[in-house]
Amino acid sequence: MQKEKIRYYAVLATTLDGFIAKEENQLSTTWTSKEDKKHLHQMEDESDVLLLASKSYQLAKEPLKNRNLIVLTTKVNSIKKENEKLSFINLQNTNLEKYIQEKNYKKVCVLGGRTAYNYCLKNNLLDDIYITIEPIIFGKGINAFNEEIAMQKYNLIFFKKLNTTGTILLHYSKK
Amino acid sequence: MQKEKIRYYAVLATTLDGFIAKEENQLSTTWTSKEDKKHLHQMEDESDVLLLASKSYQLAKEPLKNRNLIVLTTKVNSIKKENEKLSFINLQNTNLEKYIQEKNYKKVCVLGGRTAYNYCLKNNLLDDIYITIEPIIFGKGINAFNEEIAMQKYNLIFFKKLNTTGTILLHYSKK
Repeated sequence: MQKEKIRYYAVLATTLDGFIAKEENQLSTTWTSKEDKKHLHQMEDESDVLLLASKSYQLAKEPLKNRNLIVLTTKVNSIKKENEKLSFINLQNTNLEKYIQEKNYKKVCVLGGRTAYNYCLKNNLLDDIYITIEPIIFGKGINAFNEEIAMQKYNLIFFKKLNTTGTILLHYSKK
Repeated sequence: MQKEKIRYYAVLATTLDGFIAKEENQLSTTWTSKEDKKHLHQMEDESDVLLLASKSYQLAKEPLKNRNLIVLTTKVNSIKKENEKLSFINLQNTNLEKYIQEKNYKKVCVLGGRTAYNYCLKNNLLDDIYITIEPIIFGKGINAFNEEIAMQKYNLIFFKKLNTTGTILLHYSKK
């Protein structure tokens, strides 16, 4: 039997000028539309585990408390299993992909922030990317990625308008 | 008779991770699709004048030589009219909007780079923004804007797929 491939997908919301936050350590929930929040919760529901960097976890841990979570942090040595649902992982001393295999997770939803997005991008893990574009401009801010890589090509799978305000959802899949 | 409003619109292409270039002083033409280039030329054709920062002008002056151009530069004192079609302007000593009025230009296409985009954003000039999103990831790069402003809201006017590769064109208009 062929081993089922583990799917990693990033879910992120940006402004029309391409920013996921105005400043570091800021959650998107203050400026994203309710339709994007609904889409995000659906993506979370369909996932086996959510992957977050520690600052994003600190900001979102209350609404995410009943979900399977892997939190990236340098504050543990390798892996700290808080309970059946929640693990803290230090990427420097742990093989994340192997741990996800052992836990038998098949659908990994990468929620950010930049540490989580960058790690997955750098290690060529992102099979799919779901980008919501809100019709606003920050002028200055934080990009999802900040990683020196060779250019990567994706396929556009679908695009749709989520509301009358003009929020757009784009789904890309790796070429 | 009511004075006809001058329309300023930015035309830009980004990667799906929101970058207009991998590095400063790089033109988009190496990685944008032929459908985006066609769209760009249509936008140029419909404009009365193109507004460019000096580095973008240096990179694109040959293909743009028959068009009306205003080039932003600090190398002239205020205004240097090279000929009927081409002017160099130092924003520190010149009122750009007044000059555009005097020249009777009604449709101003802001082509970039960041100096030109930022100036128009900061001065609240951008009535419309046309963004082409190519289905590629740079991982790291240059954003169109880099300017501390209050958040601005836009309306999505239309969105469409330009080709089978998955290039998307979005047209936003100021709220």
